[in-house]
Amino acid sequence: MRATVIHGERDIRIEEVPDPVLSTGGDAIVRVVAACVCGSDLWGYRGITPTPEPKRIGHEFVGIVEEVGPDVTAVKVGDFVIAPFYDCDFTCINCRNGVSTSCLHGGWWGGTDEFGAFADGAQGERVRVPHANGTLVATPSMPDAALVPSLLTLADVMGTGHHAAVSAGVTPGSTVVVVGDGAVGLCAVIAAARLGAARVIAMSRHPQRQALAREFGATDIVEERGDEGVTRIQELTGGIGADYVLECVGTKESMDQAIRSARPGGMVGYVGVPNGGPELPVRPLFNRNVGVNGGVAPVRNYIEELLPEVLAGVIEPGRVFDLELPLADVAEAYAAMDERRAIKVLLRP
Amino acid sequence: MRATVIHGERDIRIEEVPDPVLSTGGDAIVRVVAACVCGSDLWGYRGITPTPEPKRIGHEFVGIVEEVGPDVTAVKVGDFVIAPFYDCDFTCINCRNGVSTSCLHGGWWGGTDEFGAFADGAQGERVRVPHANGTLVATPSMPDAALVPSLLTLADVMGTGHHAAVSAGVTPGSTVVVVGDGAVGLCAVIAAARLGAARVIAMSRHPQRQALAREFGATDIVEERGDEGVTRIQELTGGIGADYVLECVGTKESMDQAIRSARPGGMVGYVGVPNGGPELPVRPLFNRNVGVNGGVAPVRNYIEELLPEVLAGVIEPGRVFDLELPLADVAEAYAAMDERRAIKVLLRP
Repeated sequence: MRATVIHGERDIRIEEVPDPVLSTGGDAIVRVVAACVCGSDLWGYRGITPTPEPKRIGHEFVGIVEEVGPDVTAVKVGDFVIAPFYDCDFTCINCRNGVSTSCLHGGWWGGTDEFGAFADGAQGERVRVPHANGTLVATPSMPDAALVPSLLTLADVMGTGHHAAVSAGVTPGSTVVVVGDGAVGLCAVIAAARLGAARVIAMSRHPQRQALAREFGATDIVEERGDEGVTRIQELTGGIGADYVLECVGTKESMDQAIRSARPGGMVGYVGVPNGGPELPVRPLFNRNVGVNGGVAPVRNYIEELLPEVLAGVIEPGRVFDLELPLADVAEAYAAMDERRAIKVLLRP
Repeated sequence: MRATVIHGERDIRIEEVPDPVLSTGGDAIVRVVAACVCGSDLWGYRGITPTPEPKRIGHEFVGIVEEVGPDVTAVKVGDFVIAPFYDCDFTCINCRNGVSTSCLHGGWWGGTDEFGAFADGAQGERVRVPHANGTLVATPSMPDAALVPSLLTLADVMGTGHHAAVSAGVTPGSTVVVVGDGAVGLCAVIAAARLGAARVIAMSRHPQRQALAREFGATDIVEERGDEGVTRIQELTGGIGADYVLECVGTKESMDQAIRSARPGGMVGYVGVPNGGPELPVRPLFNRNVGVNGGVAPVRNYIEELLPEVLAGVIEPGRVFDLELPLADVAEAYAAMDERRAIKVLLRP
């Protein structure tokens, strides 16, 4: 089959790779219907994360089950399934505690599973899915093609935006600031509005993203950043700051922006993968009782909650995809996101 | 009157100072019945925080109202009152949001209030209390002398331990680790047990403090620290860590202990004043979805909730005072706490 392989900085190729083969009894082979490029994939693309040897890449996909191992009971051949950006058994204590990203038996696409068997990256034609019973969620019936983009966001960005809001503890009637206007930030706007925030302030400088944020439920847009951004948030919040801030970028600057945008006693929900591991400044947090909660989003735990609203069209997170390309053009997909010509690119094998 | 003045490292003196005088209309003069020495007072005593010029010290007291300004309606002359370790109007948006330490008009003992008038330190015979309507809480009647130590803890340590537990979000049936066996840590044990934790693991190496922790509700004691401490917590929690960890020390080591003792998805409630401002390591928090919440405890917001239980003897946080001295011996009080001969020293003017 064909799959995407990253060879190094700005070197993304489609290659022939071995077809996946069932091996653990509890795994499944899924034919990919749609995959996409993640902001975090750009780290390797940009050379920020080194790629010492070629490796398979991609971690978001939806598809059709083609084969299942003898222990698989939760999905069957022919099902349309959503996979989170990791695999998990969904039965261990951490999964039951709502943190399936810390599954005691889980793993990551493009790596080896707990049995030492390879699990394909998602930007390819097929993926072997370990722990299929826990990892995959089947839709009740074959979804309309128009729903595929939104279903695909449940693999990562919609669940991640939701996690920011849940980690912050967004409450009805509250004021929420969203830092970051990428796909995750835009999905965080949906999540905050969905949880009843009365005011959702999106920080964005891009007219197209601002427009989408407003359609997703943002009530205010702040274009300023840094000190000016903090001042503007203060002006919009009676001089004290926002109840909740959703940090969806992962840089030192964005986290600083988030912390300073929260009111005393406020909470920052953060899901931006810390880029280079910035430390959190404890004094500004301590002095104003601003908390920080979040992390790598356990999106598997959120699929059941969000799926019905996607199927019903109540939320349309798939609108974050503003470019669709065939898998063969995956290199162009990376370039378009790298150059911010696209918010998020959907790939069709 | 006589009051405590810190002149520099290990130089604590009782001196004659001017009697306080009403000045703002909303203030009160309180005769101190009991005060105490705080762990944070030791920073100046040990020279970690420099003392460029002599200054009044102390921030925890209970007493009897002797005079009130014309705008004071919430307390009257003769009332027994508890003061938090700061003054606040208890009407501003931050106070109403539960964060009275961020009062828009508040201040600190031994400093100047918002009108530029001096507010005495608490280790003295009398204190002028700004914003008496908001700051002071009167007991329903004159309390029994035996209750004074527990009432005094509502000025700081019991409210602060409670804040750690509230910030972490301790739930009934949960497992809680308390890092720190000082007065705040011991009060955090009371708070965790009071909020229904099924298991409260106190980290302590001191037999006397271990015994008190057990009487306060600790179900387990862990003597180990660092890697051994984390390993022991893992052993006690099925290999995953505690639901909630209450950090009551404020050093880099104690925060590290706290973060590593939490399970994936767990929460650290921290109230230990960050000593020198250690940064929080974001990667271990992000990767395991461990949150951090807390800060300088808004104890004024907790007095109404905790006072009835103190008056009824349901909780006895005053047992953290294991030494009582006359105010004249305040220098010995500091020495006893510095040398860890006492958990916490109560002073009687």
